[in-house]
Amino acid sequence: SSEGFSLSSPDKAFVLKLRGYLQTDLRLFASVADRPGSSTFLARRARPLLEGTVYGAFDFRLLLDFAAGAPALWDAYVEYKPSKALRLRAGKAKPAVGLERLQSATNIIFLERALPTNLVPNRDIGLQLQGELAGGALSYALGAYNGAPDGASTDTNLEDSFDLIARVFAQPFKAGGPKQLSGLGVGVAATNGQAFGSATSTGLSVLRTTGQQTFFSYRTGATAAEAVVAHGNHFRFTPQGYFYAGPLGVLAEYVSSAQEVAHGADHTRLRHTSWQATASFVLFGGDAAYDGVKPRTPFKSGDGWGAVEVAGRYSELHVDPDAFPIYADPTRSAHDAADWGVGANWYLNSNIRVAANFDHTSFEGGAAEGDRVAEDIFISRFQVSW
Amino acid sequence: SSEGFSLSSPDKAFVLKLRGYLQTDLRLFASVADRPGSSTFLARRARPLLEGTVYGAFDFRLLLDFAAGAPALWDAYVEYKPSKALRLRAGKAKPAVGLERLQSATNIIFLERALPTNLVPNRDIGLQLQGELAGGALSYALGAYNGAPDGASTDTNLEDSFDLIARVFAQPFKAGGPKQLSGLGVGVAATNGQAFGSATSTGLSVLRTTGQQTFFSYRTGATAAEAVVAHGNHFRFTPQGYFYAGPLGVLAEYVSSAQEVAHGADHTRLRHTSWQATASFVLFGGDAAYDGVKPRTPFKSGDGWGAVEVAGRYSELHVDPDAFPIYADPTRSAHDAADWGVGANWYLNSNIRVAANFDHTSFEGGAAEGDRVAEDIFISRFQVSW
Amino acid sequence: SSEGFSLSSPDKAFVLKLRGYLQTDLRLFASVADRPGSSTFLARRARPLLEGTVYGAFDFRLLLDFAAGAPALWDAYVEYKPSKALRLRAGKAKPAVGLERLQSATNIIFLERALPTNLVPNRDIGLQLQGELAGGALSYALGAYNGAPDGASTDTNLEDSFDLIARVFAQPFKAGGPKQLSGLGVGVAATNGQAFGSATSTGLSVLRTTGQQTFFSYRTGATAAEAVVAHGNHFRFTPQGYFYAGPLGVLAEYVSSAQEVAHGADHTRLRHTSWQATASFVLFGGDAAYDGVKPRTPFKSGDGWGAVEVAGRYSELHVDPDAFPIYADPTRSAHDAADWGVGANWYLNSNIRVAANFDHTSFEGGAAEGDRVAEDIFISRFQVSW
Repeated sequence: SSEGFSLSSPDKAFVLKLRGYLQTDLRLFASVADRPGSSTFLARRARPLLEGTVYGAFDFRLLLDFAAGAPALWDAYVEYKPSKALRLRAGKAKPAVGLERLQSATNIIFLERALPTNLVPNRDIGLQLQGELAGGALSYALGAYNGAPDGASTDTNLEDSFDLIARVFAQPFKAGGPKQLSGLGVGVAATNGQAFGSATSTGLSVLRTTGQQTFFSYRTGATAAEAVVAHGNHFRFTPQGYFYAGPLGVLAEYVSSAQEVAHGADHTRLRHTSWQATASFVLFGGDAAYDGVKPRTPFKSGDGWGAVEVAGRYSELHVDPDAFPIYADPTRSAHDAADWGVGANWYLNSNIRVAANFDHTSFEGGAAEGDRVAEDIFISRFQVSW
Repeated sequence: SSEGFSLSSPDKAFVLKLRGYLQTDLRLFASVADRPGSSTFLARRARPLLEGTVYGAFDFRLLLDFAAGAPALWDAYVEYKPSKALRLRAGKAKPAVGLERLQSATNIIFLERALPTNLVPNRDIGLQLQGELAGGALSYALGAYNGAPDGASTDTNLEDSFDLIARVFAQPFKAGGPKQLSGLGVGVAATNGQAFGSATSTGLSVLRTTGQQTFFSYRTGATAAEAVVAHGNHFRFTPQGYFYAGPLGVLAEYVSSAQEVAHGADHTRLRHTSWQATASFVLFGGDAAYDGVKPRTPFKSGDGWGAVEVAGRYSELHVDPDAFPIYADPTRSAHDAADWGVGANWYLNSNIRVAANFDHTSFEGGAAEGDRVAEDIFISRFQVSW
Repeated sequence: SSEGFSLSSPDKAFVLKLRGYLQTDLRLFASVADRPGSSTFLARRARPLLEGTVYGAFDFRLLLDFAAGAPALWDAYVEYKPSKALRLRAGKAKPAVGLERLQSATNIIFLERALPTNLVPNRDIGLQLQGELAGGALSYALGAYNGAPDGASTDTNLEDSFDLIARVFAQPFKAGGPKQLSGLGVGVAATNGQAFGSATSTGLSVLRTTGQQTFFSYRTGATAAEAVVAHGNHFRFTPQGYFYAGPLGVLAEYVSSAQEVAHGADHTRLRHTSWQATASFVLFGGDAAYDGVKPRTPFKSGDGWGAVEVAGRYSELHVDPDAFPIYADPTRSAHDAADWGVGANWYLNSNIRVAANFDHTSFEGGAAEGDRVAEDIFISRFQVSW
């Protein structure tokens, strides 16, 4: 049914859900000289997903991806959930840090996440304790992970240190209070750990635009002395929040990520910051929500039209000025990026979404003479999820 | 059941089919000196397949492959089908070009496709509009794709140009007319686009024998000036047809592929051509068909015997003589290949097929002294599809 | 249900089982200098598994793995089983050789297999005939495979020779006799074939500790003259057995693997040997068994506790002394390894297992000055299988 495909025992103590999603994109870059990306169709995500429950209290999840260039394994964990207030998760998953990162790739308002997602972990392997208190008014998460570079995923630890993560998120009026504020959520997350990289596995990563082009990278080299590597403490801090009321949705977050790095004998602490605000409005057919718009009437030729949403956003990312010129090449890496975008989503039904975005990203620095050329990109997507 | 495994809502508006196929081959090369392949068992294809329908009018398909050396993602698309006459497909799939390429790998008469498949695209990402008119008497397809090199698949576009493809295929007596001609189909397909390669991604590909050995490759190099790269228009044209009547099946196609190429300051247009004819005869137990022989009685020890088919084929491929010596090395790449083969298929039931082929391929050119040594190969296969 | 998720026809002639397992480990190496491994969380195995039956007499199996660094395809075969005495399997699978290797990764007593598994094949592609005689008292297997290096898997044959494997395994009191001996099994397996490697594909492999660190490797090089390569006969011989009686389980095996190798003009035959003995005892809740402990009562807070098992093992591996110094570097590769370990398994229910191990491995040779530093490793695991 539209709720998905599953096998289960009569008492629902054993459930296997056969899920997945496909995203086919068309990326059109404005035709300017020096732009790094080609206009292309691409399979953005091709992800079968298995979710299950055994003996009522144990969940598991296996999410794979077969889009080109993606690692195959995204999620692989088992979870023990004696109560809503206490769940223990072991395995590979999204650590509870970035707000837009934690939103499912099927539900993000824009087709590519905003700049702050560059600074929070993607997937990591470890243990996480989480739960909801006071009828969902407060949720918390505490985790120990290998420690992923900013914006990246990791499968093994580079050194013997584990990263600790913590997040609290309040939805104060979810269970009671003024009804028009029931969709308000605010929270904060932080991560802390050590990262020590090597020439082959630096512990650092690049920063990307909406068009998934690299606009900042650390200097590389064949030896540990030539390459810039993570070399010490890594601390992230990210206040975040959203507000959903009827057709209106607003999501905002700020991220600060400070990492000690080394380049030969040089050693310093670099702190990059980024923030974004996204606003969306459902023109008809549904309500705005963090977990996606659910169209009230499915599209059917001459009958229903699903739901249509329009959105706008702005985001900025600031690279620590101390990164230049020792740790990054100012003629190739920009020190500031600012992105504004507009988009529209047509939710034909609860399984099918068609979307289009336009994003303009401008830069400071990053070219031999002055600023890197701005990126103008149009992206469209056909998405099916089941 | 023998129709496959699926989950569906009572009204069939939501269906998930859990399908797949495995092919285990044994390749035995005749023992001659200088032959490039080793005799080996191999997992030729190991492909789980998910097909689904949501809200009646939307289909999706996800086909993966885990055989060694294969890209994991073969098909990943969503399709909107308001009627038989109009279907819009978005994602990764086989563009509607080559006749034998469009036949499922579980149904091809021989274990490896004939030489013309070297010159048509395998998988590509894009949009395709297709449909059937006049009760299936005429089918059409129009598509826009990234543009794949001959015989190859692609995930991203090399340049900003998209390839256009078009195909019409008529089965004039399918819906009416003389019954003995109802299995006749003739058509033509063409592709047109621009391809511009680089040293790392040349936009060109090799040509392979039935034993999957390379008999033609362009000159390579570390820089764009040293490597031969696609550099301009790519045009393909392929008339094609089949005829099935009771136990008899015939399939034939011709492909012409012309691609502008460059090697440093040299630039030219190379046109390769290829054709094949395959004839098959079902000795007992079923009828010949483009979408595979369906045995009337499943094999059961001492009871039924399934269906048995024998087949023969001939195919040729002619490389443009202008390719030598600037764009290809005549002492390593052959300029002509001719392949004849005989084969037998035992369809034990609708899920299991056991097959054996012998192919002989002779070459002109391709060795330091005259002709590349001929390839004699025996291939057997165990296939299960579900 | 707890028996798993499946789709089947009413008469069970067509069955599709949707299975799989996840293992999330934490590896903690004792903090000594010069140790090669970092303490890390890791997704040890992430394996969806499809098993099916069509037309009653044909089985198939597709086992994939998405843990980092693993090849994706583990099992891909079709099997014809006219009777219990006769099954013919074609495809990729575990050849019937090593006793602990043949045990499912979900059921092995320790979290990593003992040293002898370094010397037997992992997965290989080929044909295997097998069956059970005399009510299961005697089982046999005969196979032809490409031929895998010790401890490794292979997808293609390096040369034109196939490996033959044979195994007989007796459970003399399984069908009758003294009941306390019904869990006794003894057998022997052997493999024989030719292997000829090249610089890029040597036909040889490394030896690993419990912590999956390499403690022995052959000399490598860019050309066939510089690299040590397999060059001739490869013969393995492995007597093996187990005994299960109530809570007690004992498993033991010995492996001898002799391979002709070459290094430039040097050529010799090297014979490595290894043995292990593992004893386990179920403290409460179930019985010891080769195919895993099945807890009688599932864990439920304040109600049942599942089953708990403790175990100990000892294993040794002896590298042929003639390997040094021509074929392996004595300052980097150890010639002897001895491993003792203790472990505990908590089977919460038939789907969930939590386990912890400690292993100590000492070496002779393998360092610039004397012996490689001993490995002390603690491993824990959360496992879900469905």
